[in-house]
Amino acid sequence: MSHEAGWAHAPGAMRGPSWLQAPADPNALVPHLWSQTAHKVDGELHVGGLAVPDLVAEVNTPAYVLDEEDFRSRARAFRDAFSSYDVFYAGKAFLSVAVARWVAEEGLCLDVCSNSELTVALRAGFDPARIGYHGNNKTLIELRRAVDVGVGRIVVDSFDEIERLESIAVDGLTARVMIRVTAGVEAHTHEYIATAHEDQKFGFSITSGDAFEAVRRVLAAPGIELLGLHSHIGSQIFDSSGFEVAARRVLALQARISDELSVTLPEIDLGGGFGIAYTTQDDPADPAQLATEMSKIVEHECRALGIPEPRLSIEPGRAIVGPAMCTVYTVGTVKKVLLDGGAVRTYVSVDGGMSDNIRTALYDADYSCTLASRASDAVPVLARVVGKHCEAGDIVVKDEFLPGDVRPGDLLAVPGTGAYCRSMASNYNHALRPPVVAVRDGVARVVVRRETEDDLLATDMGDQ
Amino acid sequence: MSHEAGWAHAPGAMRGPSWLQAPADPNALVPHLWSQTAHKVDGELHVGGLAVPDLVAEVNTPAYVLDEEDFRSRARAFRDAFSSYDVFYAGKAFLSVAVARWVAEEGLCLDVCSNSELTVALRAGFDPARIGYHGNNKTLIELRRAVDVGVGRIVVDSFDEIERLESIAVDGLTARVMIRVTAGVEAHTHEYIATAHEDQKFGFSITSGDAFEAVRRVLAAPGIELLGLHSHIGSQIFDSSGFEVAARRVLALQARISDELSVTLPEIDLGGGFGIAYTTQDDPADPAQLATEMSKIVEHECRALGIPEPRLSIEPGRAIVGPAMCTVYTVGTVKKVLLDGGAVRTYVSVDGGMSDNIRTALYDADYSCTLASRASDAVPVLARVVGKHCEAGDIVVKDEFLPGDVRPGDLLAVPGTGAYCRSMASNYNHALRPPVVAVRDGVARVVVRRETEDDLLATDMGDQ
Repeated sequence: MSHEAGWAHAPGAMRGPSWLQAPADPNALVPHLWSQTAHKVDGELHVGGLAVPDLVAEVNTPAYVLDEEDFRSRARAFRDAFSSYDVFYAGKAFLSVAVARWVAEEGLCLDVCSNSELTVALRAGFDPARIGYHGNNKTLIELRRAVDVGVGRIVVDSFDEIERLESIAVDGLTARVMIRVTAGVEAHTHEYIATAHEDQKFGFSITSGDAFEAVRRVLAAPGIELLGLHSHIGSQIFDSSGFEVAARRVLALQARISDELSVTLPEIDLGGGFGIAYTTQDDPADPAQLATEMSKIVEHECRALGIPEPRLSIEPGRAIVGPAMCTVYTVGTVKKVLLDGGAVRTYVSVDGGMSDNIRTALYDADYSCTLASRASDAVPVLARVVGKHCEAGDIVVKDEFLPGDVRPGDLLAVPGTGAYCRSMASNYNHALRPPVVAVRDGVARVVVRRETEDDLLATDMGDQ
Repeated sequence: MSHEAGWAHAPGAMRGPSWLQAPADPNALVPHLWSQTAHKVDGELHVGGLAVPDLVAEVNTPAYVLDEEDFRSRARAFRDAFSSYDVFYAGKAFLSVAVARWVAEEGLCLDVCSNSELTVALRAGFDPARIGYHGNNKTLIELRRAVDVGVGRIVVDSFDEIERLESIAVDGLTARVMIRVTAGVEAHTHEYIATAHEDQKFGFSITSGDAFEAVRRVLAAPGIELLGLHSHIGSQIFDSSGFEVAARRVLALQARISDELSVTLPEIDLGGGFGIAYTTQDDPADPAQLATEMSKIVEHECRALGIPEPRLSIEPGRAIVGPAMCTVYTVGTVKKVLLDGGAVRTYVSVDGGMSDNIRTALYDADYSCTLASRASDAVPVLARVVGKHCEAGDIVVKDEFLPGDVRPGDLLAVPGTGAYCRSMASNYNHALRPPVVAVRDGVARVVVRRETEDDLLATDMGDQ
């Protein structure tokens, strides 16, 4: 089957993908995949000073466990490394009132991209002046509210939106905006593609002239204050080479605006997309290294172009919340499945799945996991961890070595589930979405509670 | 870019995928993609005797519009064509109390695959004896409830589950079960793959002997009544050739059970997966044709094996609800994006997206759409309909010809969204999930209401 291309199958022994090594000790955690307070005590996973088995005895499984200190320290690391930048936490990765509060407390700004994300931010008491508002299709009502509450910057994405903002400005309100441009750079992991154009819904093309035209039009509009240009090049990016190409193109536009329109735009946003480690394959750069490299690129380009350095901002989301969370499941069934060629795959079914983590199915994403409730000296077997949904593609962890005696009742924990798991969770098969439990210094606090059947069925109007 | 492989790009003109033809009249519906009461009147889409623009003036967009008569008539078509079978509607495709009621009224049985789906069925007053319970990881609590309420058949998927059912039987309760087997057939659209084994989480392998062993064990267990074997081969299947191979293998097992265990199992379920037309590429078989072919296959095999014909059942879900629903969106922005090579793609952003239809991103699924609020004689342009989420992959319809004057405020309707759209919907970017509005004979009835911000934030515990 196609998804196994490149695998080595020896009769009777599953080898898995080439990057996956059988661990010397399957009870040990691979530290860089886990949040900073995670460790094992006699085989039991501890996070935030709490034993996970004790925690889920209270809150049940599946549950997302959020290491508050880890989240805060990653936020601080970005803030400190990018101290001359504004650092916007990208709320789309995961947002709740508590998390928005932490973001504020750690001195970061916040990106939202919908009306209800803005509501969450405001409920958290987030200073609207430190909020950015994103999206490729913001309605007049959404824009009006953003301007009304004093959102610090609206990232404008189309001429239709400029028109809407012009109509709002008539009422004497000022919209502070950035213009999202496409620089023709698409970056993922260790590669980037540079083209003249980008085939995507976001932004104004630099090459086509749309970006310059958008700047011209916004500068001419009374009641709209243009802060600068905004560029975002991809996701799960591991180095700064793609940023370099994008920054060069965006700063060239900045120079043209300065030349032809005699305007020095004060800011530039270089977007987010900083990668995290999901498995041992991944070795992302740390914030300090990224900051050094990105600052050097901008400094160098500005000097070459003879323009002043704008104030910079970046937008990490996944890189802050991703590693801070793990998902804890209970094993329900274990099945040895004989494959063609004589190999055996161990299917371990847990009590969640694609409803709480769609990323494996949606992006063919790799994850890892560990036995969280006990130590085992059983010989490791290559296992596939699957969910309980009625769908063959309902896979949580495609390949992981687990102790060969893994069995119903065991707890499994999957690290790196902080970003785009709870935020993209569904009720497929009428599954109830798991809680997010923050742990810190031995104290657990439910920041998003588990859905109940009443929650789920509240919108079902029955059959009147 | 890789997803455009095979496309023909002429400078200035987008050609799209090879199967997509510019329509003679872009205002016309392609009938077999739409529910049976759908038609246009002066460019306005009408469904269930209602003008969609009038309907959404009441309920707002995005909205799923469910053609009740279409749903019921497709259910009846399966019931009548498979009159000697039990036809189970697969609730995972879409389930609500109202829909469960319709399923009952049209004389079908119902499949559920979770505790909360069972709750919906029971709220609808569905006869538990006519309910099937699926899943690869049913807990003891779930199984116990299913047995307690008298579910007609539990589809057993693992030895772990058999053990659980044995423990329940101790209390004098009888579980009626089928055994899910894997026949080594994986079918999709016009192709199937036949192997000895299947690399998936579901079922007991026939080839490995697990399926026979499961039968032996269930037959030996007091308090478990074995109804028969269950096989499911895939999804979006357009012909019966894959079913033929699977039926042959399952019936061979049936014969072996008869020979070696002297037991004639009374039933066989051949699963679901019957395809529907999402675009003009698709030309699915109708129920009558499928019924004729499948019955002939089973009859022939049973005669060859010298065994009596078991009572058959099938499980259509998508084939009943899929074409019965369309999703109606409002256009928010329109953007012409210049591509490398000089072609231009028209990006049309609507007020929903991957939160209400993840299938395009998840399965690379194709959809079509039409302008639903007016006629236009503008020259058609090849457009991509995208959502409003902060994600480049947030595409609703990859390629469709729309009138060149498509503009903000227009309504677009996407047919074929009844299955796995609302049921897999998420709150990504804190989007509020759309309502499902049933229409029939000029009357609209909300069967699932729109989520409110209060619904969404009910689980956010704030920052106590």
